[in-house]
Amino acid sequence: MIKPEFYSILRNATTPGTIFTHVEALFPIFRSITGKGIRCTLKYIDDRVQNFQMINVPSGTPVLDWQIPDEWNVNSATIRTHSGEIIIDIKENNLHLLQYSIPFRGRISRDVLLNHLFSISEQPNLIPYRTSYYNRDWGFCVSNQQKDAMTDAEYDVDINVSLEPGHLTYGEVFIPGRSEEEIFFSIHCCHPSLANDNLSSIAVAIELIRALQATNDLRFSYRFVFVPGTIGAITWLANNIENTKRIRAGLVLSCLGDGSGLTYKKSRNNAASINRYLEWLISNEDNANIREFEPYGYDERQYCSPGFNLPVGCLMRSPNGSFPEYHTSADNLDFVQPEALFSSYQFILKFIFLLENDAYPVNRFPFGEPQLGRRGLYPLPASLSGDDDNKPDQMSLLWILNFADGHHSFFDIAVLAEISFQTIINASIILQNSGLLDIYNNAKIHATPG
Amino acid sequence: MIKPEFYSILRNATTPGTIFTHVEALFPIFRSITGKGIRCTLKYIDDRVQNFQMINVPSGTPVLDWQIPDEWNVNSATIRTHSGEIIIDIKENNLHLLQYSIPFRGRISRDVLLNHLFSISEQPNLIPYRTSYYNRDWGFCVSNQQKDAMTDAEYDVDINVSLEPGHLTYGEVFIPGRSEEEIFFSIHCCHPSLANDNLSSIAVAIELIRALQATNDLRFSYRFVFVPGTIGAITWLANNIENTKRIRAGLVLSCLGDGSGLTYKKSRNNAASINRYLEWLISNEDNANIREFEPYGYDERQYCSPGFNLPVGCLMRSPNGSFPEYHTSADNLDFVQPEALFSSYQFILKFIFLLENDAYPVNRFPFGEPQLGRRGLYPLPASLSGDDDNKPDQMSLLWILNFADGHHSFFDIAVLAEISFQTIINASIILQNSGLLDIYNNAKIHATPG
Amino acid sequence: MIKPEFYSILRNATTPGTIFTHVEALFPIFRSITGKGIRCTLKYIDDRVQNFQMINVPSGTPVLDWQIPDEWNVNSATIRTHSGEIIIDIKENNLHLLQYSIPFRGRISRDVLLNHLFSISEQPNLIPYRTSYYNRDWGFCVSNQQKDAMTDAEYDVDINVSLEPGHLTYGEVFIPGRSEEEIFFSIHCCHPSLANDNLSSIAVAIELIRALQATNDLRFSYRFVFVPGTIGAITWLANNIENTKRIRAGLVLSCLGDGSGLTYKKSRNNAASINRYLEWLISNEDNANIREFEPYGYDERQYCSPGFNLPVGCLMRSPNGSFPEYHTSADNLDFVQPEALFSSYQFILKFIFLLENDAYPVNRFPFGEPQLGRRGLYPLPASLSGDDDNKPDQMSLLWILNFADGHHSFFDIAVLAEISFQTIINASIILQNSGLLDIYNNAKIHATPG
Repeated sequence: MIKPEFYSILRNATTPGTIFTHVEALFPIFRSITGKGIRCTLKYIDDRVQNFQMINVPSGTPVLDWQIPDEWNVNSATIRTHSGEIIIDIKENNLHLLQYSIPFRGRISRDVLLNHLFSISEQPNLIPYRTSYYNRDWGFCVSNQQKDAMTDAEYDVDINVSLEPGHLTYGEVFIPGRSEEEIFFSIHCCHPSLANDNLSSIAVAIELIRALQATNDLRFSYRFVFVPGTIGAITWLANNIENTKRIRAGLVLSCLGDGSGLTYKKSRNNAASINRYLEWLISNEDNANIREFEPYGYDERQYCSPGFNLPVGCLMRSPNGSFPEYHTSADNLDFVQPEALFSSYQFILKFIFLLENDAYPVNRFPFGEPQLGRRGLYPLPASLSGDDDNKPDQMSLLWILNFADGHHSFFDIAVLAEISFQTIINASIILQNSGLLDIYNNAKIHATPG
Repeated sequence: MIKPEFYSILRNATTPGTIFTHVEALFPIFRSITGKGIRCTLKYIDDRVQNFQMINVPSGTPVLDWQIPDEWNVNSATIRTHSGEIIIDIKENNLHLLQYSIPFRGRISRDVLLNHLFSISEQPNLIPYRTSYYNRDWGFCVSNQQKDAMTDAEYDVDINVSLEPGHLTYGEVFIPGRSEEEIFFSIHCCHPSLANDNLSSIAVAIELIRALQATNDLRFSYRFVFVPGTIGAITWLANNIENTKRIRAGLVLSCLGDGSGLTYKKSRNNAASINRYLEWLISNEDNANIREFEPYGYDERQYCSPGFNLPVGCLMRSPNGSFPEYHTSADNLDFVQPEALFSSYQFILKFIFLLENDAYPVNRFPFGEPQLGRRGLYPLPASLSGDDDNKPDQMSLLWILNFADGHHSFFDIAVLAEISFQTIINASIILQNSGLLDIYNNAKIHATPG
Repeated sequence: MIKPEFYSILRNATTPGTIFTHVEALFPIFRSITGKGIRCTLKYIDDRVQNFQMINVPSGTPVLDWQIPDEWNVNSATIRTHSGEIIIDIKENNLHLLQYSIPFRGRISRDVLLNHLFSISEQPNLIPYRTSYYNRDWGFCVSNQQKDAMTDAEYDVDINVSLEPGHLTYGEVFIPGRSEEEIFFSIHCCHPSLANDNLSSIAVAIELIRALQATNDLRFSYRFVFVPGTIGAITWLANNIENTKRIRAGLVLSCLGDGSGLTYKKSRNNAASINRYLEWLISNEDNANIREFEPYGYDERQYCSPGFNLPVGCLMRSPNGSFPEYHTSADNLDFVQPEALFSSYQFILKFIFLLENDAYPVNRFPFGEPQLGRRGLYPLPASLSGDDDNKPDQMSLLWILNFADGHHSFFDIAVLAEISFQTIINASIILQNSGLLDIYNNAKIHATPG
């Protein structure tokens, strides 16, 4: 269990700059759903956390309704003029090559080339991010300005890539706690050189893992999976059908570095406690938003498919598709704010603190109010308090004593009393120390008058 | 089952003008709860639909807590001056005679006559519609202007009517479907020369019956009853106590021809699916209203009496009592709009399409998303689509696949996804054709990962 | 059962002036949680109602988690100048002495004295009301003006009180009804010379008891307890653990005499019928308020402690702490309004009328509407009516008949129909007299068509 004192330490166990360093380091790597880039990315994580496992699944392996695709590796990709001038080069920007483009080399007419170019007319100076994983094609992503500048009759295209049997690789960290029940975090890591949509959540997750690995005696077990989007989540699910039954709550993490408020997209299973927890936690944050579940977005689509229906929501700042930089070259290092990364980190720790500490208190003197004065708790001495932001007062003690009936958890009481969860926990420690409160993980206890 | 293609045909199987023709044809007939007029009205329906049954119940027959009254037939009814000038004549307007007026002939003073005249001071040029079915009296309904013009000392009254043992007659059409469960429509047909309050719903019902009788392989059975208000509904209930148990949903139809938006008055049984269906369908219509159940209004009073408590609501445009033309000579052919009649017809067909097609889909590949690309469904080709208004898109497929768990019907999914029901059905056909979806009428199926 | 006719009599069985007389008579008495003052107060009640019981509990007796304190009696308490001038005297205002002040006599410096003075800087001319029941101390409550005038170097303090083993005394009236189920009222009576916060509810309760004792054949039993705050409620609970199981609904009464609208603070058990009843009753009053339960306020804190969790709410006008006169010398006879007292009395009687009359009606002719005309109920004659404010009309009859299915009580029907409860009762009597309605206390009866 993460106690309040240790929680204060964990909240400041990293810095905005440290988290941002990860984003910077990972930005230049060319990533896709398979290949060297994603393996290099996972290696970066492996170097920074303990017990990181990399799982390789061979091409062709059936996973649920899908199959592991061939592995894709890129050597070079250019468009040149007759005169040999390179006008588009993947070395300039990883986004230039259509993801999973097949090999191609040849001189082609401008008209044919245009059919293989992707650009955004409304954002003429941005390069879009496009994929064609399961539809064999070749192509380039360019800015509209670049496209407009291609006025020659013919161009030389050279896409030097390999698309051959190999492996899909994903990473996983398991942090055991007292309970086998798991808290699950999933982070996709297949996007090349997109800073917010991908790297922000990898960076935050690295620091969360480090914080949890610095903790001993965790109540729950924690699992972080770093997977290529869609196919990686499906592969993890296919390999972990039994494990999924232990997932008590989970979050898909994405886009945690931009300047907007937090967004929680609810789990498909509306009654899941993750929804109650996150809706309330986020309602106390500035500019935060709640979204209903919809079967589109990130890998919650897979975790919340009807056969699994896991209690997994999605935490973001700006949601996918909602910001102009989304899936373009503008989702770069300038777009991500170190303070936003840090604030995301702290918010997720707040959620973890809640999970670790929520329990069912039982008032040992439930018949009438216990006499607090006799126990030095009325009036409440200033010395008995937590940090200034979460200082218990007389009312927090009374709320706990009144609702500590085995039917209301600390979280329930915080919601009823409109008091922060941490204040409730701080107050409960005072009551425990005075012998007034027992705590159970799952109490529904009925007292009888003695 | 009414398939989408056939539904499109049915929606245009009649015209505004055709429906209005029925209102015009029936308007001149003198109707009451018994007698030749209602029989003539039922005969008009009989001539236009198949398998119409007329049921005659003798006067004096006990029906639930009531008794069939004597049959009332009208030959003539006039008020004349001494000089023999006819100043009020039922030939001028069917509303002039108080319904169920007893026979009366004699010269009476103006003061006595005034006690037998009904008029509306706030609407001085309109004739009201009044009844005295169970309280033996005679009387005339006149405009305030007509009343004010009666300044003579005495008048000759001649009400030549018969009120004698005979029959109450109602009509019924049963359209069998695959299921014995019935969808029930009740239309009152006792009002004389009121165009909206009575004839509009008879006219719409005739065309609905014709549409359903043109359909083979209906899922549900349909029953339309044409009854005199109150006593007719009570008589039908008394004769059909066992049949009522098969009613799965029903609507009392009335006032379907005026220019206001649709109103759905909820069934007494608030949890009945008719309420969920109609509340949602109507919420997508312009200027529509929902009314809570109250024990006043049309024959839903009888169907929703506590002993029956049938899942029967009431569909109207302007509700009873809410428009100035209600129960006056202004509820005439000018008040009813052909387009409004047609729009009512189409709305009820939309409800029937929903009933016929709602079912529980089950995703055959519920673990993770099925790979749509491999099946030619990602991206979704433009060719795979319904009519332009209800064209499925990628999201409609994803919504169905995600919620096709045996616990959500197509209707539930449409509500969740905020997508039209017909689009959901069109999308489900694509999924069925690709082998992704099974459909059950009442599934609550739990899949296990294979 | 309190029938409508008798209810009309009870509503006017007292007057604003009569209730106010009690407040006036009790105001000068010096009260605390023990001692002669509270006994004298209870004796005043005993003289005015039947079957009043006074229970004495010896000091030191354990009661739940508490212990009966020593008995406190006050002879005199003054502050004098060297010259012998009495500047503070409990004879001038009962509030001057800190409640449960220990004996003290001596000449002390101004600085020491100031540490024992309580005043309110924001309300410089008011004397506060302060207690120190369980923290042995001495002190005076004075106005800020009085404090500022104390400029001498030393003062002579003389607190002549006894704090010795004795008794805690509370009073109780039980009014038996046909049922053993009890309606419970709790009134605290320990505050000295505070008119609204204490005396108003004692005064109203005296008249309520007199009204109920004038009634024979009550449906429920009624219990009124007059207890010193907190310790008295705890003592009563300790002595009545078995009795609490019979409490079906209850109210703590306080602050019923000021000019604000009524406030109902809900019972902790949110589903308790007391909450449904009071929320609806109060929603029909002017300027009324609903408050959610919180574990602070009056003795509902004890009755709603989790071990008891009784269906007991709190009825007030201005709630504790919400008005500037609260717990000051301004809560005096001028602050209490006779009309407000009377209106509180009438409101509680309305609640009692509801309790006594709520029951489950069953329509004896539930299939279709019963024919009202044949029974002289359509149209409804003007003669068949209650008082002008609660006159049944045709709709009230139809609402009852439609929902008299054994699942809806009269209260449920009043809420559904938005008709006053008394009108519903008046209408139900008409229906009963016509043989249309049976009434059960707890019906859930399903009729079958005959």
